[in-house]
Amino acid sequence: MLINNLALQHGFRTYNTILSDAKAFLALLQEEQVFQEPCLDRIAEIESEVEQTGTYWQSFDELAYGAKLAWRNSTRCVGRSYWNSLEVRDRRSLNQAEEIFEALVEHLRLCTNGGRIKSLATVFAPQEPGKPGIRIWNDQLIRYAGYRQPDGSVVGDPKYVEFTELVQRMGWKGGEGTPFDILPIVIQMPNQRPKLFELPRDAVLEVPIQHPDYSWFAELGLKWHALPAICNMMLEIGGVQYTAAPFSGWYMGTEIAARNFADENRYNLLPVVAKRMGLDTRYDHSLWRDRAIVELNVAVLYSFRRAGVTMVDHHSETRRFVQFEKSEALAGRTTYADWGWIVPPISGSTTPVFHRNYENVELKPNFFSQPDPWR
Amino acid sequence: MLINNLALQHGFRTYNTILSDAKAFLALLQEEQVFQEPCLDRIAEIESEVEQTGTYWQSFDELAYGAKLAWRNSTRCVGRSYWNSLEVRDRRSLNQAEEIFEALVEHLRLCTNGGRIKSLATVFAPQEPGKPGIRIWNDQLIRYAGYRQPDGSVVGDPKYVEFTELVQRMGWKGGEGTPFDILPIVIQMPNQRPKLFELPRDAVLEVPIQHPDYSWFAELGLKWHALPAICNMMLEIGGVQYTAAPFSGWYMGTEIAARNFADENRYNLLPVVAKRMGLDTRYDHSLWRDRAIVELNVAVLYSFRRAGVTMVDHHSETRRFVQFEKSEALAGRTTYADWGWIVPPISGSTTPVFHRNYENVELKPNFFSQPDPWR
Ligand code: HEM
Ligand code: HEM
Repeated sequence: MLINNLALQHGFRTYNTILSDAKAFLALLQEEQVFQEPCLDRIAEIESEVEQTGTYWQSFDELAYGAKLAWRNSTRCVGRSYWNSLEVRDRRSLNQAEEIFEALVEHLRLCTNGGRIKSLATVFAPQEPGKPGIRIWNDQLIRYAGYRQPDGSVVGDPKYVEFTELVQRMGWKGGEGTPFDILPIVIQMPNQRPKLFELPRDAVLEVPIQHPDYSWFAELGLKWHALPAICNMMLEIGGVQYTAAPFSGWYMGTEIAARNFADENRYNLLPVVAKRMGLDTRYDHSLWRDRAIVELNVAVLYSFRRAGVTMVDHHSETRRFVQFEKSEALAGRTTYADWGWIVPPISGSTTPVFHRNYENVELKPNFFSQPDPWR
Repeated sequence: MLINNLALQHGFRTYNTILSDAKAFLALLQEEQVFQEPCLDRIAEIESEVEQTGTYWQSFDELAYGAKLAWRNSTRCVGRSYWNSLEVRDRRSLNQAEEIFEALVEHLRLCTNGGRIKSLATVFAPQEPGKPGIRIWNDQLIRYAGYRQPDGSVVGDPKYVEFTELVQRMGWKGGEGTPFDILPIVIQMPNQRPKLFELPRDAVLEVPIQHPDYSWFAELGLKWHALPAICNMMLEIGGVQYTAAPFSGWYMGTEIAARNFADENRYNLLPVVAKRMGLDTRYDHSLWRDRAIVELNVAVLYSFRRAGVTMVDHHSETRRFVQFEKSEALAGRTTYADWGWIVPPISGSTTPVFHRNYENVELKPNFFSQPDPWR
């Protein structure tokens, strides 16, 4: 089934939409032989529940397999070969921001797992008809503040200047002012005001970045958090919309080294690294950017490995993705993908995915982006 | 105007298609104020000519500006900022394969221009109604043979093994058996048998590849031709289809270094270069491929520069492309592009185009791919 644009819009969703999405989802579960029970009984049950309440409560198994399918259907994710190993924590019963926050901290600890990172999703209560859903305002559970300086420059991650100023206006005292101050978590329960929470330091594993050959690299004082934990997407399963369903796996090195550290509107480290490498930054054709970005990537992969924190490189991961396509084909399924996201941001053509074509069809269940709650 | 799929099909094309394409083209010329003359007279003229002959003969100015527009509309070309400087040679009067070949040699000499490469298109007679068009069977005027060895390996460019065997069956004696033997040209006039021609050595400028820091690099014995001259695409202008209209500009370094030299199914040089660089090729995460491909690119850019042969690097060229977008916007036009072709095959995210979105709409006039004539 293709994305129904209406279903992406929040607020009022008709009985028919929910019911037809539910039926399509149950048919899919049956096709993939997830459960033993006959699907028809469950459909009747859902039908009457939707009639009475405007929505329905999914079983744990529906939720857990639905979340796996949502991952498998994420056309921008190159890590989908692991889709079937996703662990799903059901936290739909929580209705206080404080409880949600505790569950997020628990998510970080369980997923980080001392460096042997697991794939994990924690699902909170779905949006109810006619009410806004639970929202975590951050885009990832762990991100670094960006402090705008009087001269216009930024200390920290420039991507988060707006969010930093937002939480400061909400009462955040700010961190120590380092380039790597961890932002507080903002949780908003339906029809309540958002609340701020400070993550305990020991829930956040970080890796200091060194280079195997350049001893000066450590002097740059770089580090990054072990866990990419996206928490602003909406998980939609069988017509039910989970507006708060953070998920995390492990990093591919390029995400940190080629984007967060290198993008001009992020930490913008290529000029600094190139200078320390002694490269001639006067001419584009000396390829100083290309040389510097490779060494940044070498450093990040080396440092995570040395720290015993799970991370994949773009060569092995894209090869694994092609394997995933093959196993999907064996199961009779087409692998849809967003080529521009699957091909890594460096050395594109050295990876097998560059040379393949993908159709970008967004099936459901899936993770969808949502508008920022403060806009 | 969007691509009309019918118009891509060869053979029979109706009066109406040609006429409506002609009108749209003339309207475009008027919009861009190319000529002084009133467009209506010309339309009446074309109308009666198409009625009588099934096609019409374009003026030189129509042809020349049409070819420029075709370039400007090529969504896969990152070099389009130069579109208005295209030189167009009108060789529509030629009707012998031998004459065509002479014109191709002349094209190479004029375009190469001793290393100060120009942008040039040579246009031969268009396809006539109910007849096949003139075809040059090669995909580029200068390409290297690929000789399949008894053990299955290939000497030369593996991409051209099929074409090499084809021309051998047609009577080509083969070159010296080096990895860089220049393929003969195959020209087929309408309803005639294809003929083989050997390019004169002095019409082909080549650049030996060295590295600014690694003296062993020259020992690899690499070289590449100065000119990328595509000759198998169909130039379509105002309903008229030019099935033989070779064009060439200068290279962007990555085309040679990141693709022709590095792709596993081309010269596959990364393992060789990495070994000479002393990199650890046992592990993906040492990023030996990434390091080797950057040095290959450094070598190619350095060598062309040293030889005084025009070449651009992917940083300056993508920045120039963004400028082109801006000047197009000032002229009231949207720049359509094929993102996956505009973003270079290495260091994608270090170039501005990676961070932009493009719609890929193929306007006309344009260059279209054609089926291989021997299939
Ligand atoms: C287990 C290791 C994982 C790896 C190596 C991986 C890799 C990646 C990468 C490289 C991206 C592109 C990120 C970017 O360029 O910003 C991505 C995006 C994505 N991944 Fe994964 N992923 C993993 C786990 C997961 C999990 C557990 C889920 C959900 C259950 C998931 C769902 C997604 C989604 C929805 C996106 C698109 C995000 C967006 O649109 O911004 N991934 N993944
Ligand atoms: C002047 C310097 C030029 C530069 C730097 C340039 C750059 C490029 C590059 C990098 C590509 C992608 C090639 C690949 O990945 O295989 C490309 C494709 C293309 N260019 Fe240009 N180009 C130039 C001149 C021209 C000219 C003169 C024309 C036509 C008049 C042209 C039309 C095209 C077309 C049609 C394609 C797509 C080819 C295909 O589909 O295989 N370009 N160009």
